[in-house]
Amino acid sequence: MRYISFGDEPTISPDDFFMNEALKEAKEALAEDEIPIGAVVVWNGRIIGRGHNLTERLNDVSAHAEMQALTAAANSMGGKYLRDCTLYVTMEPCVMCAGACYWFQLSRIVFGAYDVKLGFGRLNQKVTHPKTIITGGIRENECAELVKDFFRTKRGK
Amino acid sequence: MRYISFGDEPTISPDDFFMNEALKEAKEALAEDEIPIGAVVVWNGRIIGRGHNLTERLNDVSAHAEMQALTAAANSMGGKYLRDCTLYVTMEPCVMCAGACYWFQLSRIVFGAYDVKLGFGRLNQKVTHPKTIITGGIRENECAELVKDFFRTKRGK
Repeated sequence: MRYISFGDEPTISPDDFFMNEALKEAKEALAEDEIPIGAVVVWNGRIIGRGHNLTERLNDVSAHAEMQALTAAANSMGGKYLRDCTLYVTMEPCVMCAGACYWFQLSRIVFGAYDVKLGFGRLNQKVTHPKTIITGGIRENECAELVKDFFRTKRGK
Repeated sequence: MRYISFGDEPTISPDDFFMNEALKEAKEALAEDEIPIGAVVVWNGRIIGRGHNLTERLNDVSAHAEMQALTAAANSMGGKYLRDCTLYVTMEPCVMCAGACYWFQLSRIVFGAYDVKLGFGRLNQKVTHPKTIITGGIRENECAELVKDFFRTKRGK
C-alpha cells in the first residue's frame, strides 16, 4: 500500500487520509446538529464528491451522507457510473445506501464504524455490485465516538 | 375492500385505481425515453407525491421513480415520515428503494410487476420497516409489458 506524506506530519495511509476527510464532513454535520456521518468519493486519488447527513435540514430521511456524496461525485464525473471510485464513509452504509452503491457500480466501499443494527452487513446476501470490494473499521473508534457522543448529548438535554 | 366508482366506468378497486396513476407516470417516463417505471404515494385516499424514472435526464442512476415520489410526498406532508402512506409503483422496488421505504416508515408498498433479478423480494431478510405491508402483482401484466416493450424497441434499434 502506498502512503502519503505531509512534511512534518506522520505518514498516513490513503485510507486513513480519506477517512479523515469523511470525518471532516461528519463534523460539519455535527456543527449543523445533524447525526454526524460524513462521506467522500475518491477517484484517482482525488476527492470528486463530498457529503454529510442532511436529514434534518432537508427534512428528508433519505438524505444520507452517502447519497449526497455519490450524486455529487456522479455530477462531477459527468457520467452515470462511479466504476473506478471509492466511497469513504464514517459509518457502515444502510441498506438504501448500499443499494445505491450497487447502481453506481463503485469499485470499493470503505467505512469507519460498524452499524450492527442497520448496516448492510447484517444481510446475508450481497447487495452491492459483485465487483465492489468492502473494507470496514478504518478509524473505527473516532467514527463511532462522534455518533455516540451526539446521542449521549441529545439524551442528556 | 372499498371500491371507487366513476359514473359510467366500471368500478375498480383503490389498488387498481392508484396503480393506474403509477402507470400514467411510467408512460411519462416512456415519452421521455426513460425506462418506463412510475410511482405515486397515497395518503388518506389522496395522491401526495408522484414520480417517474429520471435516470437518463438527471444522469443519476439513483433517480428511480420511487425516490422521486417518496421525496415529493415527504415534502408535501412537511414531515419526515410517511407512516400512514402507501407507495404504488409499477415495478418491484430495488434494494435501494426498499431501503428508502424503511426510513420513510411507509405503512404499505404495492407494486405491479415482479423483478426477480433486482427486486428486494429476492432477499431472504426483511429490509423494509417491520410495520410495512407488501402487496405485489397489481396490474402486473400492463406494468411488465411497458418495460419489456421498451427494451424490445431499444434492442430493435
